[in-house]
Amino acid sequence: MMIKAGIVGASGYAGEELLRLLAMHSHVKVVAATSRNLAGKKIGSVHINLDGFYPDLTFENIDNNELKKMCDVIFLAVPHGASMDFVPELLNGSTCKIIDLSADYRLKTAEFEKIYGMKHKDPREAVYAIPEVHDVLKEAEKIKNIRLIANPGCFPTGATLAVAPLAKFGVLENVIFDSKSGVTGAGNTPSATSHYPNLTENIIPYKMTAHRHTAEMRQEISRLQPGFDNISFTPHVIPASRGILTTAHVFTAKKYTTEEVKKIYVDFYKDKPFVRIVDGVPSLLAIRGSNFCHIGLEADSKTKRIVIVSAIDNLVKGAAGQAIQNMNILFGLSETEGLWIPGLP
Amino acid sequence: MMIKAGIVGASGYAGEELLRLLAMHSHVKVVAATSRNLAGKKIGSVHINLDGFYPDLTFENIDNNELKKMCDVIFLAVPHGASMDFVPELLNGSTCKIIDLSADYRLKTAEFEKIYGMKHKDPREAVYAIPEVHDVLKEAEKIKNIRLIANPGCFPTGATLAVAPLAKFGVLENVIFDSKSGVTGAGNTPSATSHYPNLTENIIPYKMTAHRHTAEMRQEISRLQPGFDNISFTPHVIPASRGILTTAHVFTAKKYTTEEVKKIYVDFYKDKPFVRIVDGVPSLLAIRGSNFCHIGLEADSKTKRIVIVSAIDNLVKGAAGQAIQNMNILFGLSETEGLWIPGLP
Amino acid sequence: MMIKAGIVGASGYAGEELLRLLAMHSHVKVVAATSRNLAGKKIGSVHINLDGFYPDLTFENIDNNELKKMCDVIFLAVPHGASMDFVPELLNGSTCKIIDLSADYRLKTAEFEKIYGMKHKDPREAVYAIPEVHDVLKEAEKIKNIRLIANPGCFPTGATLAVAPLAKFGVLENVIFDSKSGVTGAGNTPSATSHYPNLTENIIPYKMTAHRHTAEMRQEISRLQPGFDNISFTPHVIPASRGILTTAHVFTAKKYTTEEVKKIYVDFYKDKPFVRIVDGVPSLLAIRGSNFCHIGLEADSKTKRIVIVSAIDNLVKGAAGQAIQNMNILFGLSETEGLWIPGLP
Amino acid sequence: MMIKAGIVGASGYAGEELLRLLAMHSHVKVVAATSRNLAGKKIGSVHINLDGFYPDLTFENIDNNELKKMCDVIFLAVPHGASMDFVPELLNGSTCKIIDLSADYRLKTAEFEKIYGMKHKDPREAVYAIPEVHDVLKEAEKIKNIRLIANPGCFPTGATLAVAPLAKFGVLENVIFDSKSGVTGAGNTPSATSHYPNLTENIIPYKMTAHRHTAEMRQEISRLQPGFDNISFTPHVIPASRGILTTAHVFTAKKYTTEEVKKIYVDFYKDKPFVRIVDGVPSLLAIRGSNFCHIGLEADSKTKRIVIVSAIDNLVKGAAGQAIQNMNILFGLSETEGLWIPGLP
Repeated sequence: MMIKAGIVGASGYAGEELLRLLAMHSHVKVVAATSRNLAGKKIGSVHINLDGFYPDLTFENIDNNELKKMCDVIFLAVPHGASMDFVPELLNGSTCKIIDLSADYRLKTAEFEKIYGMKHKDPREAVYAIPEVHDVLKEAEKIKNIRLIANPGCFPTGATLAVAPLAKFGVLENVIFDSKSGVTGAGNTPSATSHYPNLTENIIPYKMTAHRHTAEMRQEISRLQPGFDNISFTPHVIPASRGILTTAHVFTAKKYTTEEVKKIYVDFYKDKPFVRIVDGVPSLLAIRGSNFCHIGLEADSKTKRIVIVSAIDNLVKGAAGQAIQNMNILFGLSETEGLWIPGLP
Repeated sequence: MMIKAGIVGASGYAGEELLRLLAMHSHVKVVAATSRNLAGKKIGSVHINLDGFYPDLTFENIDNNELKKMCDVIFLAVPHGASMDFVPELLNGSTCKIIDLSADYRLKTAEFEKIYGMKHKDPREAVYAIPEVHDVLKEAEKIKNIRLIANPGCFPTGATLAVAPLAKFGVLENVIFDSKSGVTGAGNTPSATSHYPNLTENIIPYKMTAHRHTAEMRQEISRLQPGFDNISFTPHVIPASRGILTTAHVFTAKKYTTEEVKKIYVDFYKDKPFVRIVDGVPSLLAIRGSNFCHIGLEADSKTKRIVIVSAIDNLVKGAAGQAIQNMNILFGLSETEGLWIPGLP
Repeated sequence: MMIKAGIVGASGYAGEELLRLLAMHSHVKVVAATSRNLAGKKIGSVHINLDGFYPDLTFENIDNNELKKMCDVIFLAVPHGASMDFVPELLNGSTCKIIDLSADYRLKTAEFEKIYGMKHKDPREAVYAIPEVHDVLKEAEKIKNIRLIANPGCFPTGATLAVAPLAKFGVLENVIFDSKSGVTGAGNTPSATSHYPNLTENIIPYKMTAHRHTAEMRQEISRLQPGFDNISFTPHVIPASRGILTTAHVFTAKKYTTEEVKKIYVDFYKDKPFVRIVDGVPSLLAIRGSNFCHIGLEADSKTKRIVIVSAIDNLVKGAAGQAIQNMNILFGLSETEGLWIPGLP
Repeated sequence: MMIKAGIVGASGYAGEELLRLLAMHSHVKVVAATSRNLAGKKIGSVHINLDGFYPDLTFENIDNNELKKMCDVIFLAVPHGASMDFVPELLNGSTCKIIDLSADYRLKTAEFEKIYGMKHKDPREAVYAIPEVHDVLKEAEKIKNIRLIANPGCFPTGATLAVAPLAKFGVLENVIFDSKSGVTGAGNTPSATSHYPNLTENIIPYKMTAHRHTAEMRQEISRLQPGFDNISFTPHVIPASRGILTTAHVFTAKKYTTEEVKKIYVDFYKDKPFVRIVDGVPSLLAIRGSNFCHIGLEADSKTKRIVIVSAIDNLVKGAAGQAIQNMNILFGLSETEGLWIPGLP
């Protein structure tokens, strides 16, 4: 099988990562990489690490009608608010599938409009897909739509994977996610936060009580533990390009030992190749550039508190890698196809 | 006034910082810097940043009897468990004052023995001194001993300063300290954690539920809000040499606005030159190398949760700087003497 | 074809990289990974990025007689001075091929003994193999030995690739290599140089006039421009894990324009997939984790000086990657097999 | 004595450093800090490390006529091309002295116009002042103008100090400066180079054969060794905020031992408190934030090549610190006044 793929918004970090990863995927041929600003430029002249790959591909400004004819799958790597313009046009009269990396189709419409402060132009349902937590194909069946995937946000992916097994047990009482993200999460436009002298040897908290991803975490975790929404979230930018380490401070209804919690996690994730329960603490370096999520945990011996730490690459498991994993599932491939790549410390 | 100072354990990071800061103090002359390993070496040949300073001082292995005669004040910059050997000998038959940077005299004796797993050889009371939180001289009067200061731990300093104003109001219900520390906190002996390829682009949690400093935090914060000990603490090492950013996730008995909390903090710290409430978020770079503590805060508009972030330099306000601040107070100098130095971004 | 490979010294950085890269090679099965210290441990418990790969492989302490029967190819990733103990035993009475990543067989024996200050126990000739500069198979024919490859040093690889095209033209008059290396070049044992607080925000020159790799550079570059040895080399450690950027300050017999030099380089490397002449300056990030060498250059418009900058990953093109490239060539595979992987910024 | 100082362009890095350092200077009161963009803002709200210092000072947009009446000394921390507009207005009808941190008055006028590609509006002579190399007061006498100092560029300061002693001996034959600079050298506006994900774990060469500072190096070094201009210069940006490490590859007319060269350097700099010849290699961390220049050196035992490495803080000895040092000299203070501050590792 050779899947023809298009990437809309191929100049940003998520687009770049899709191109990097798909260069190693045996069943995908990238046939289109769109970018308004870079139209006409060769892929390898912009993303220098890809010099030598994609010799025949240039950034282009392609019309939606043409694009949907060229592609079996289209990845939307555009800012939130932009995808909802693309999706109806691309789905209409075509058979292509869409994997949307923006926030547009992740939340229930009303919640989206509240959190993102804008009217939704295309309020249709999509499959929110963290494949380790919900069965993507079954979800698609439920909404009778296997053509639109809402690829999860980076922070919600790390946070949900960190507590899903306990949520499934229904024992969460209070969860505080203290997340530490590499600065690529803020995009590739230079800013005060990404200015090297401001970030090196520093760690920068932001949106300390009101980050938009909190809504996404609450929506998804409450699907596992109905009614539970006592979730707080504070993100920080660390002096690192990639990676999200999420420290989940979890207060539970009952007391556990570390061994008990570990068993719950190992069981929950036993058939999930990309989620691995590690001894000790996880490392952003071990999963760097890969689609893995490493999880470490420790139960307080005296209180009903458990600290669970998950490590993902924000651009891979938190974006492009999970998108390809979802594509693999949609097209009936093994979910590890093209993604069985070790982290690069 | 010229205070004659001795530094025991001058080869480590805390000793090095004492030497760096005292080089800029007009009322202190360092007369002794002890180190068993470096005896005979010039200060500037080991701590190269001090080349040109202390031209007449070499590391020495000095007998306690001699040392206590030479010095008005002695800083103990030795590992925990070692100070309790020095203190009785140095105090006995002398008038010199001791500022102990180790953990030996911080906790009540029974608690110390439990937490540090060793018998205390010299169970006397000392003044635990974060000068912004308790009146050091009054505390000394209480215990009729102005000659022994227990200089606080680095994490407890940042944590206590972050919540003291709310503790004073007695409104804390649940506090989670998620701290991020520079790697100098682990000392200057190369280790797996401090090995550059393991730390760069990473963030490493450790002792996730059971760090020793938790006991110190509980002891000190419960002095402000009697009976309160619902305190959790998880430290992380960040890719930075210096600095501790403590994110305090605070659940309170009542709901506050950000403005209300800010007013409480500004009032509490109004006569404390080294603690400053900043707009926005604090930065480790702004206080780098200085004795300042910067605090930023934000109340959740929907719940009884407040996020308070404090930034200190672990080696300065968290060790050598606070030690000198305490020395200033003990000797009747202005507490800012020799410490009114801006951070170096 | 499925090549059975063994790695001797699999605990170090070069061994770790061999395991990482071979995990993505379709024609290699790693059948042995030796380590005295780690014997009995699972690969993924030590090299955490490999957790999930090599489920059936553990570190072992294997006898040479057994090892040479198990393997078609053996990679020696041991310190210099150690390979010469392994090579004769492994070659004797076997058919396996050896790729030695140590320095033992790179230099002519007399030169080796002078530079490394030790007697050579096994003074046989090997093929020194930078495949972009010399034809590896022809070299092997010449010495009638296709069973022992001396895999080049990291600095000599970056340096030689930077000047080979001009050396071939015979125009070099004075070459100064000023190299900047990531700290993994110094191995995975924590040391003062790799201690994070000593390296961050710093750059550390070392062996400023007398690094051992100078001899290797002179030997190899003089094969291209006979008689030329006016080569100086000064290495520095930069705050980075991986990568070597070599700035070659080249004084030539005649004056060139940038365009002329660029043409010479593009021509010289036109059939070499891993060496790419970039516009502007090369980036360590573009080739991170990959087997590529990126080269940028600029001729001084006024003098006979050219600045050529090469970027390689010291652990890949400078060690494990080039070793696999050489293995591919020895076994008749495409040289890019298993190595056609983009850099990970 | 209390010198009233004004800073023009106080929002940039050089201005910020002047404010940081002058906060520790007992004989200077900063009376004006100009900035068009920040007018009305408090110093401490912009340069957060200065919060608590300068309580009565705000950024202002001050007229030149007013400024020259308020100040005894004015520091111009503006881009090249801008100082030449300020200098004639500020000097005319006033007695204030000017220390210009821009490039406008460093080069002979004709050379300036060629190198910077602009007409000079105010072609007057100034004192180019690296106080360790030339006697600033004597130079001022020569040109009968003690009121305008051309403060040297950052790269030329590090480069000139590295070779001055040998230049004085007249033995230089070929000098290649390979410099590595922190990214603050590029200013505080976020750019692609200063974008954290582009710089971390990288090192970026730029203007490989044609940096403007080469002319300044040639001018100043040829004053020490008349007729010598065989000087090449290639700068790199390293992942560091501050500091310039200059590796000088020096070919000399005769052969030296390391000890001989060291003696020449120690003698040359024996009365210069800020320049220190170190054993081994210098460290950017040892001089971080300070006005020191550390120099290490090694002669090749076999050729007429010497490698000399100098380390300075680009914002201090390379800008604001040297400016204050020059101010001290102009006003008859000790040159170390307010600058005798150790580096902060």
